[in-house]
Amino acid sequence: MEIALMQAKKTCPFIHVASASSLRRLTTGNTMGPLMSKARQCPVMSQAISSRSMSTTVETPKEEPAVVHSHAVPAQQKAFDYESFYSEELEKKHKDKSYRYFNNINRLAQKFPRAHTARVTDEVTVWCANDYLGMGRSPVLIDNMKRTLDRYGAGAGGTRNIAGNADLHLRLESELADLHHTEGALVFSSCYVANDATLSTLASKLPGCVIFSDALNHASMIQGMRHSNAAKKIFRHNDMAHLEQLLQSVDPSVPKIIAFESVYSMCGSIGPIREIVKLAKQYGAITFLDEVHAVGMYGPRGAGVAEHLDFDLNATNPHRGNGSILDEIDIVTGTLGKAYGVVGGYIAGSASLVDMIRSYAPGFIFTTSLPPAIVSGAMESVKYLKESTAERHLQQTNTRTVKSRLGDIGIPVIPNPSHIVPVLMGDAAAAKLASDELLSEHNIYVQSINYPTVPVGEERLRITPTPGHNGPMIEELVHSLEKIWNRYDFKRVQDWSAQGGCAGVGTENSTTPIPMWTDKQLGLDMDETEQAFSSNTAE
Amino acid sequence: MEIALMQAKKTCPFIHVASASSLRRLTTGNTMGPLMSKARQCPVMSQAISSRSMSTTVETPKEEPAVVHSHAVPAQQKAFDYESFYSEELEKKHKDKSYRYFNNINRLAQKFPRAHTARVTDEVTVWCANDYLGMGRSPVLIDNMKRTLDRYGAGAGGTRNIAGNADLHLRLESELADLHHTEGALVFSSCYVANDATLSTLASKLPGCVIFSDALNHASMIQGMRHSNAAKKIFRHNDMAHLEQLLQSVDPSVPKIIAFESVYSMCGSIGPIREIVKLAKQYGAITFLDEVHAVGMYGPRGAGVAEHLDFDLNATNPHRGNGSILDEIDIVTGTLGKAYGVVGGYIAGSASLVDMIRSYAPGFIFTTSLPPAIVSGAMESVKYLKESTAERHLQQTNTRTVKSRLGDIGIPVIPNPSHIVPVLMGDAAAAKLASDELLSEHNIYVQSINYPTVPVGEERLRITPTPGHNGPMIEELVHSLEKIWNRYDFKRVQDWSAQGGCAGVGTENSTTPIPMWTDKQLGLDMDETEQAFSSNTAE
Repeated sequence: MEIALMQAKKTCPFIHVASASSLRRLTTGNTMGPLMSKARQCPVMSQAISSRSMSTTVETPKEEPAVVHSHAVPAQQKAFDYESFYSEELEKKHKDKSYRYFNNINRLAQKFPRAHTARVTDEVTVWCANDYLGMGRSPVLIDNMKRTLDRYGAGAGGTRNIAGNADLHLRLESELADLHHTEGALVFSSCYVANDATLSTLASKLPGCVIFSDALNHASMIQGMRHSNAAKKIFRHNDMAHLEQLLQSVDPSVPKIIAFESVYSMCGSIGPIREIVKLAKQYGAITFLDEVHAVGMYGPRGAGVAEHLDFDLNATNPHRGNGSILDEIDIVTGTLGKAYGVVGGYIAGSASLVDMIRSYAPGFIFTTSLPPAIVSGAMESVKYLKESTAERHLQQTNTRTVKSRLGDIGIPVIPNPSHIVPVLMGDAAAAKLASDELLSEHNIYVQSINYPTVPVGEERLRITPTPGHNGPMIEELVHSLEKIWNRYDFKRVQDWSAQGGCAGVGTENSTTPIPMWTDKQLGLDMDETEQAFSSNTAE
Repeated sequence: MEIALMQAKKTCPFIHVASASSLRRLTTGNTMGPLMSKARQCPVMSQAISSRSMSTTVETPKEEPAVVHSHAVPAQQKAFDYESFYSEELEKKHKDKSYRYFNNINRLAQKFPRAHTARVTDEVTVWCANDYLGMGRSPVLIDNMKRTLDRYGAGAGGTRNIAGNADLHLRLESELADLHHTEGALVFSSCYVANDATLSTLASKLPGCVIFSDALNHASMIQGMRHSNAAKKIFRHNDMAHLEQLLQSVDPSVPKIIAFESVYSMCGSIGPIREIVKLAKQYGAITFLDEVHAVGMYGPRGAGVAEHLDFDLNATNPHRGNGSILDEIDIVTGTLGKAYGVVGGYIAGSASLVDMIRSYAPGFIFTTSLPPAIVSGAMESVKYLKESTAERHLQQTNTRTVKSRLGDIGIPVIPNPSHIVPVLMGDAAAAKLASDELLSEHNIYVQSINYPTVPVGEERLRITPTPGHNGPMIEELVHSLEKIWNRYDFKRVQDWSAQGGCAGVGTENSTTPIPMWTDKQLGLDMDETEQAFSSNTAE
């Protein structure tokens, strides 16, 4: 508790910015309402309140009686107490430690990957953003977006059907269709919306559709499937035997969707695209592949893992009909908000599929389209990363360095072939403590990932190296984690090993996954290049 | 058909921009696939294809055999034909005339409300955007967004929980809470997402919740209610007796949500907020009020219709707890993408409600947060419109002028007290013809609104005046509509009257609604001001 208070004094954004008069204003009136509600948002105070509230439960069931806005229901029939219900739902989150405290992080374009916190003078190194390649601060994008703002204004001004369909939107969609070797593409507010709208529309329309869903699929896909009301069969993560068994249980003539991801963002595993496409064909299913964490990052043009699987073929002949596995995937979804550095999502597929979703999905139809500057910036990013591979390469070599340096000192990285570096904590409080201490003591920001994003007992720190992280930053990260591991005696690989392993860490007979980007693809098989890289990352 | 072809020659963006070589490329290979799919997107060609396809149905059931990507299912058990299914679904849209052709509209910030079409040299006046006040081109926003791009980059880089929660997001939410007199607010990707996520989360959590929904509620609310799986009772549009009857049918202790809008965007009617709040209190329900088409537009600070109802009180004491109806509404939702000119949506409500949605709604949690520049621009817009009323006033006086001028010549405007000018067509083909002819012959863009956005038989042109439309533009619009009405003999008010009225047009004993903005509020009761305005709108 002492450490927590010490940290709070140093980092509390509230005490630093609140004036005496505003504090007074917050405590006037009959209740402590506004101040209490502020206090509940604070990681330190909320703990104090919750422990006090628990210790006094016997006498006073509620710390602060919820004001039910004088609903004038006859006294004998009491109205539902909404405010108490909300508080109880929040209390559940506090109790199971899944309540989320948002850190105040302001990523600085000119100092990437640095950010300032609540106070502009306090800067930290961001090690967990999804702006994987630092495109968000690229002058290519920024300049283009500023010009577009001047020319076309701040917003689209309407839905795609009513005044919000500009040439930019059409051009971005052409660019994306070309990227994924499809006939068409369709842009949405986000890939959350793209996944939700597409899966719910498609699976509810296809008569009797059955969806086969990987157990680790993203929340947006899960929502889309749920909203479709279609039958769903969940196969164990990346387990092809299980998928085939489930496919066999459904009549061949029934429409089927296999929904899966290329890079699973919380563990960094990669879906067996080729095998799933093969099973889909064999059992008359279509494939729905979420490449959200892979677009911009894999493949010679950044189309994702599917493109990466036929790297050389796609590098020499990057067009639809070249016979690569890209041509065999029915629906790809991607985001413009991670490696591409902006915001928005999309689907790519056949002209008819895209036109059907365009024509029927409420989540596409009834919403303001993305602003011209966003669309234009995203398009520049996609085009740029079709040509430039330097960012992808440097991101991958930095990932290798971080994984290897952490491995050297026994800090448990969940093994995977991708660009994600998940450090296993195995406990919600430990993950939060490590994250808080990295921020307050070491000026390093890595968000802790707890339930429900990962299973209980598999809580982790999710580290995402970028091309902007240089050698000294990597060393600083490694040493800071080492200090924290020593201070709190957090579990290392051998500890996990001793208890039989967890989430792939310390598991017996496990083999180290081969990175998706090979030495050859990264140019690491050439001596000179190796040299150039090591000096580059240490600059 | 001759007229259609004549227009196509003049406006076809495809023939004008496609080179001979790209046309050749589109027709190579065994099928005409790419060219056919382009042709299907064309309003002229698609009609030709569909009539040809219908006339040849007997011999050849399909115009172009759908390529089922060689799904290798055993021959005896045929796999589902996905591509044919998509085509059939699209054919339904073509047949019932609800297939949407997106116009290519590029709104020019420096020439608001002008836009260029597919060819940059072809300019039109936009009369149907939801950038109601022209804030999208305001230097206040643009300059701020450009500075924010330089400082914080193009994207947020993560979800609100992971690296995507900046001070800007928190400040925007404070600004919105202050606007609506609530304890808290929460920003989403769009108000579609805000409505969907909030209603589905809230109504699925509240035990046994029953939702009471206005019959004309927006698609996003309908989706949210559907996704909650809660019981739903639909009351006739703005019918308080019907709402009360439905409320009486449910036990008082059961949690209830009354979901409704302030301004209904397609007819311009306004929800009876005070009456609904009264019923909600009486029957122990909470109110969910969508102010999407009202924020920025009504009230002394632009908080919407709820604020407008206590105009003078809120003008003199614009704070929570002032006793206005604003304080009595449980949940307000709004958009940053219409009058505020940018993109994004939000909810505002009690601290606990907002925190619960923040903690539980997948549509909020699992998506990249809005880019800093978007958030910053939206915040500037909200702040600006809290102070400046000139835009709202001019928008309202222009609306009055358009409605009155169209009324003078008998063009049927659906009567309403708001800023929307819905011109009744009553037929999908007529609405599309009028819209197409306005665009191609008169350089005026008003999108036709057909089923399912409005009921069949109530198709319309939806006109939205802005402060940027000057006197000559209004005259041009009125004369162009008059020409089209004369040319095609479209129904006027007296025609609708003769057949008993439709959608409020020509209905017997109907009274003209009193505008929400009164003469006094617009300063039109003072002689000098009246003079100033008439010269202003004619400038």
